[in-house]
Amino acid sequence: MRGPHALQPIDVPTLTAVLDGAHAEVRNQVREQLGAHAAMVHEAPGLATDDYRERVLAILQDSAQQGLTGLGFPKEYGGAGDVGGSIAAFETLAFGDLSVLVKFGVQFGLFGGAILHLGTARHHDRYLADLVAGRLLGCFAMSETGHGSNVQALGTRATYDVDTREFVVHTPTVAARKDYIGNAAAHGRMAVVFAQLEVGGEQHGVHALLVPIRDEQGGVLPGVSTEDCGHKHGLNGVDNGRLGFDHVRVPRENLLNRYADVTEDGTYASSIDNPDRRFFTTLGTLVQGRISVGGGGIGATKLALTLATRYGLRRRQFGAPGADTEAVLMDYRAHQRRLLPLVARTYALHFAQADLVDRLDRIFSADEPPAGELGDDPLEAAELERLRRELESDAAGVKAVATWHATAAIQTCREACGGAGYLSANRLGMLRADTDVFTTFEGDNTVLLQLVAKGLLTEFRDSFENLDPIGTARFVAAQAVESVAEKTSWWQLAERLRDAVPRGDNDNAGLLDRDYHLALFRWRDDHVRSALARRLKAGIDAGDDPFEVFSRCQDHVLLAARVHVEYLVLEAFDRAINAQPEGPTRAILAALCDLATLSQIEADCGWFQEHGRLSAARSKAITAMVGELCAALRPHAADLVAAFGVPEELLDVEMLAG
Amino acid sequence: MRGPHALQPIDVPTLTAVLDGAHAEVRNQVREQLGAHAAMVHEAPGLATDDYRERVLAILQDSAQQGLTGLGFPKEYGGAGDVGGSIAAFETLAFGDLSVLVKFGVQFGLFGGAILHLGTARHHDRYLADLVAGRLLGCFAMSETGHGSNVQALGTRATYDVDTREFVVHTPTVAARKDYIGNAAAHGRMAVVFAQLEVGGEQHGVHALLVPIRDEQGGVLPGVSTEDCGHKHGLNGVDNGRLGFDHVRVPRENLLNRYADVTEDGTYASSIDNPDRRFFTTLGTLVQGRISVGGGGIGATKLALTLATRYGLRRRQFGAPGADTEAVLMDYRAHQRRLLPLVARTYALHFAQADLVDRLDRIFSADEPPAGELGDDPLEAAELERLRRELESDAAGVKAVATWHATAAIQTCREACGGAGYLSANRLGMLRADTDVFTTFEGDNTVLLQLVAKGLLTEFRDSFENLDPIGTARFVAAQAVESVAEKTSWWQLAERLRDAVPRGDNDNAGLLDRDYHLALFRWRDDHVRSALARRLKAGIDAGDDPFEVFSRCQDHVLLAARVHVEYLVLEAFDRAINAQPEGPTRAILAALCDLATLSQIEADCGWFQEHGRLSAARSKAITAMVGELCAALRPHAADLVAAFGVPEELLDVEMLAG
Repeated sequence: MRGPHALQPIDVPTLTAVLDGAHAEVRNQVREQLGAHAAMVHEAPGLATDDYRERVLAILQDSAQQGLTGLGFPKEYGGAGDVGGSIAAFETLAFGDLSVLVKFGVQFGLFGGAILHLGTARHHDRYLADLVAGRLLGCFAMSETGHGSNVQALGTRATYDVDTREFVVHTPTVAARKDYIGNAAAHGRMAVVFAQLEVGGEQHGVHALLVPIRDEQGGVLPGVSTEDCGHKHGLNGVDNGRLGFDHVRVPRENLLNRYADVTEDGTYASSIDNPDRRFFTTLGTLVQGRISVGGGGIGATKLALTLATRYGLRRRQFGAPGADTEAVLMDYRAHQRRLLPLVARTYALHFAQADLVDRLDRIFSADEPPAGELGDDPLEAAELERLRRELESDAAGVKAVATWHATAAIQTCREACGGAGYLSANRLGMLRADTDVFTTFEGDNTVLLQLVAKGLLTEFRDSFENLDPIGTARFVAAQAVESVAEKTSWWQLAERLRDAVPRGDNDNAGLLDRDYHLALFRWRDDHVRSALARRLKAGIDAGDDPFEVFSRCQDHVLLAARVHVEYLVLEAFDRAINAQPEGPTRAILAALCDLATLSQIEADCGWFQEHGRLSAARSKAITAMVGELCAALRPHAADLVAAFGVPEELLDVEMLAG
Repeated sequence: MRGPHALQPIDVPTLTAVLDGAHAEVRNQVREQLGAHAAMVHEAPGLATDDYRERVLAILQDSAQQGLTGLGFPKEYGGAGDVGGSIAAFETLAFGDLSVLVKFGVQFGLFGGAILHLGTARHHDRYLADLVAGRLLGCFAMSETGHGSNVQALGTRATYDVDTREFVVHTPTVAARKDYIGNAAAHGRMAVVFAQLEVGGEQHGVHALLVPIRDEQGGVLPGVSTEDCGHKHGLNGVDNGRLGFDHVRVPRENLLNRYADVTEDGTYASSIDNPDRRFFTTLGTLVQGRISVGGGGIGATKLALTLATRYGLRRRQFGAPGADTEAVLMDYRAHQRRLLPLVARTYALHFAQADLVDRLDRIFSADEPPAGELGDDPLEAAELERLRRELESDAAGVKAVATWHATAAIQTCREACGGAGYLSANRLGMLRADTDVFTTFEGDNTVLLQLVAKGLLTEFRDSFENLDPIGTARFVAAQAVESVAEKTSWWQLAERLRDAVPRGDNDNAGLLDRDYHLALFRWRDDHVRSALARRLKAGIDAGDDPFEVFSRCQDHVLLAARVHVEYLVLEAFDRAINAQPEGPTRAILAALCDLATLSQIEADCGWFQEHGRLSAARSKAITAMVGELCAALRPHAADLVAAFGVPEELLDVEMLAG
């Protein structure tokens, strides 16, 4: 049996440099900032909600005054025009207090991002400098009590009053109040409100507009009602609240009018004719938030794994017979198996995330290009549009997978530290609670995966631009015949790929061959997708109720999305490894990739056997190999987490003291 | 394809009566008590730690004054002598605030239980009435900073001073301080301290003795040091703390001397000669705590599932095309798949738990029998001992499986309620955080499963009474040859059982046949166990280092325990169903059992395929059948959770209002 190669010692700074990538400088700046917040991190669990909120606000404002919060904004407004860097900074902030992270996300990512991407010069000139500097705090008021995921069905109304040239913003029902909104309970002075736009009696769908909610002294403005969401499972340093509007009037100019505008005389005009497409373009600006949340989840996971791995390397329990001391937990295979595949998968997700950030950076740079350079040519614009859609879909998928990973991994870290893991002084409890909502906000993971699957099935066709999952079934039935045929040829391709995989005489041949892993994951991606298309079509063709057809296949829909993301993650890791020169760093990354991938195959070995892609013997061989890879990586456990680069001040916890 | 039978409407009171079983009256009493605590339940998330602790204490003392806390204690001390009832009450308390639950557990289960079971009349007469009445609050001081799981290696010392006829209790190192101890930070006045007993220079292993720690006014006594564990991830209404002893002297009579005593002149004597066996007998009193924690986890899961199911039945999102209203979440197959198998498994675990409680009740009744009735006959005593060991092992296994289920199920419930699930007002966040430590306390789940596996491999032989997992490998190597042979015959038996299973011509034959499920689970139990024994033996026979052999097989050890517990759970559910008359209640239980079992097989379909027990087609058929069972149970979802009998006042949360 060919086992994993013996691994040479890790050069930690080199590995950190590989992880930090293009944004090493920004990441290191944030690491330094975080040191200054260490006290706050350790005190947070005991703070009363009001104190906690004020502490978090103070950190935000302090950072803004030091000029550290404008990274993603244009230079003319006090920013640095570095979108990729801003996300790298956000990911690194996740080593600190997560209420601070989320407050930053609300203020600069959501509120600031909406004004930047949905507004035009008049909004930029008036608000961006203030918001970057933390003088204008704001809300991103999209979710409502009645509608979180189905944004197209929001109930808040914005009706144009041609006489006064104002929009009248109104909350018609309790279900339509804005809910879970960060900065709404206490600190926000303005909100980007998503509402159904009505002009001259005609409905134009969801649009965003700026609505002041508090005056300079923090008093709630007339017509606005606010309510505190109260205590939350986590993130209690963020003041989430509810907003209601009783016929609140704002000037016409408050409409964020990048994609649509209303003239003074009440004429609605948009550069995007199709209302669904307009809606999705508007929502497309959420992509940065989703990528940020995914990155934040990965960052928090790195922190948790660093804590748990270090604890596992010092905590002793039971031991070898006759030995003077008990064995450290990490010397138990079961403990290795609990933690090391999570470390490996965190590396894998890191590279998938880095890939998204690169693509976002390129697209956003192309999006607002120097005059005449790109985007004027319609063909290039179409290509940009395609890249943007693909990014949105991939970002949704990686966000879902990465935040579920965070939830599971941090939970395992907590348990792996036993009672110590339960004490707030050791950070893991708060990490679990704070990150818990990551699977829900910026898009519920289950809904996001359905979005991914829809993109896969429809190849992002315009005619299918609507969130309604049922539509997927109908679309596939109506139009996807040739698409299914295409998928069949992919399948054949995959079969050929499979035949190319070295199998040899024994069950272990090629187990550590990354091309085999890639072929297997790609085959699964193609197979699940084409089988799903056939199944949806068969149901509709048989005349079954489309809702019933969709519902029956829903797990298949989710699986199609998930396996697609797994393929993306592996591809990204593979590219990152191939970009490294031969040597110990490349070897350790390859071993991590093997472990991450084989663990995934092991977890899905039932599916692979069902589909004739793993024999029983080979499936068992994979389980054995996962164990061997854990053993091979065990001596490097400390270095593997050290390379994440969590500042020592943030690891200064009771259970690791002395 | 034979699908699940159409199910008739559920009669909720009948189903509740089946669940409540023999302890319906006690459960209903607690349900009424809990109504009075509803306000506290809803206010808890916002309480400062000190307030919260005092509120919890007040509830405990109030309950004690009403005579509600003595259920498990003898009548002469204000109790009811109803061990089973006391655990049923504890399970039901889990619908309320879990800090209250755990404070009850510390005071009456651990502290009270230790005095009851490890002490003798002198301790009972002096303390039981006061502790039942909540006048004497106490601690169960076993865990130390350095040792949680490996209790035999505790560092606290109790040295007999023959001159003064006192024990000197001492904490020699920081690692030996008592840690995570409930009631230690604030309310406890006395502690049952587990310490290494030394008499006349001779070590006798871990024994328990009573050490006063605070005076009547709450002042810490000389020589005792206390420290607050501070904020915890959950259960902040319980005052966990650390205790240190600086040569603290207690009278000789403070030794809890049921199994061993020291005479005035310093002679050590025990009714149990073998020190390991004595230690395990002492620890055996923990069984009640473990059963309680498992039951508490199941109770909390019932509450969470009730909340999430009700929310899923009212929350609408997206929907069928052309429909006026959006669809309720529970009409989506993916949502059914998320929640209904968890409901089914909670039923399954309920019956496994009820079985443990019955056995505990019988054993503890036999344990302190009316004079001459039972226990005098040595043969009966041996049988009692065997039953007790088996119960300890099964209780450890069910505790591990049930508390991991609680962690996963409550997490899923939180996510299934989206943002609403994250607000503390809706209870799920606190439920998650409070129950999180259930997988750790009263025995870390991973360690408990190793204990189960050890019992399976050694059939509870005396010679192998020690917690050290490495010993397992050596024991198996040294003595288990004929045991392995026996297991081979079990295997053959299982093969015959398998052949007896109706398979028919298609892949669905027998899928809903409970005898088939039982045969499959039993075969897996036998197979994994015997394969493990062979593997351990082969490693030792080959001369490999025993620690290495054990570590290599550790996942196999854990699997052996887990699949054994799965078999126990299915057996218990099967018996409970068979005890019901034919009719709608029996039919619904059978459908739940099918769903619980097939979901487990689906989750492990890789293993069953690897071992030739599922064909690919049959594995796929199981996945399809799980979906069908979910659809069949969907119309009954509200009733299935209503039957858990959570008082309405405890379900009066924001997201279910209006």
